[in-house]
Amino acid sequence: MTSSFVQANEKYAANFSKPDGSGFKNYMIIACCDPRIDPESQLGIKSGEAVIIRNAGGSAIDALRSIIVPQHAIGVTGEIAVFHHTDCGMTKVTTPAMREMLKKANPDRQDVAATVDGMEFYEICDVEQSVRADVDFLAENALILRGTRICGWVYDVETGRIEKIVERVA
Amino acid sequence: MTSSFVQANEKYAANFSKPDGSGFKNYMIIACCDPRIDPESQLGIKSGEAVIIRNAGGSAIDALRSIIVPQHAIGVTGEIAVFHHTDCGMTKVTTPAMREMLKKANPDRQDVAATVDGMEFYEICDVEQSVRADVDFLAENALILRGTRICGWVYDVETGRIEKIVERVA
Repeated sequence: MTSSFVQANEKYAANFSKPDGSGFKNYMIIACCDPRIDPESQLGIKSGEAVIIRNAGGSAIDALRSIIVPQHAIGVTGEIAVFHHTDCGMTKVTTPAMREMLKKANPDRQDVAATVDGMEFYEICDVEQSVRADVDFLAENALILRGTRICGWVYDVETGRIEKIVERVA
Repeated sequence: MTSSFVQANEKYAANFSKPDGSGFKNYMIIACCDPRIDPESQLGIKSGEAVIIRNAGGSAIDALRSIIVPQHAIGVTGEIAVFHHTDCGMTKVTTPAMREMLKKANPDRQDVAATVDGMEFYEICDVEQSVRADVDFLAENALILRGTRICGWVYDVETGRIEKIVERVA
């Protein structure tokens, strides 16, 4: 991808103007790393507006460090949106199956076996349930700033539509 | 943000056409969750093309679960780009300072103290060094598919320009 990145970035940099911070809207998104997910387009977020955390499944547990630092050290105290999606890859794996697969790919590596036995993969059974569980996790976590509004959304990859599932205050 | 999300998504969904997968380019980006970072624009990535993982600092260690699942369970076996940036918030915090701050915000909570003492914040001292360290971490990690090309980049928030720092093969 190197040459395509360099070429695309030359065009980007040629028209670059440094954001003055006025567009910063003080909120955070936690979304999945799936290629079909594009929080900026799907939620109408402009570049420079929001902290955008993305990981496999859009797990709030996995995102905790990346939420704490902006909240406590940078002052991003606004709303958190948990943004999961239908047909997520994390509904197709389980922690035991992932551990087994990784051990089989690395036979005779006791260190790998020990590492993967300590890893949680945060699989998803039902996407509405996972959104609710992640919003609950954040709302009830003492490391999340009290008073933070937390909304949970599901994006439908078949229609492009979002649905708000839940809203809580930490 | 709820009403703005709903309004923006209505427009998005009205013009939605389901990606047929033909644009999928089989590579991954690990970038920071900072609002000034926009991997799609800055690297010329089209929606649907790449797995995009974002966390505080763009840490490869923190991203490991989200790299393993696409590689081993979904078949995303192409290049990994580690994409860090200048003036990163993670250069302004340290793990001991974050732990101290969180304990002070939750006095009399022994459970919180124990949790934060177990948390690593993956602070960055020098951005070039952090890119090299993260590329090394992935290249030498048995859980990353052998043969994966891993490139490390730094984005300059003052100029909009990228620089390639390092390239290795796992």
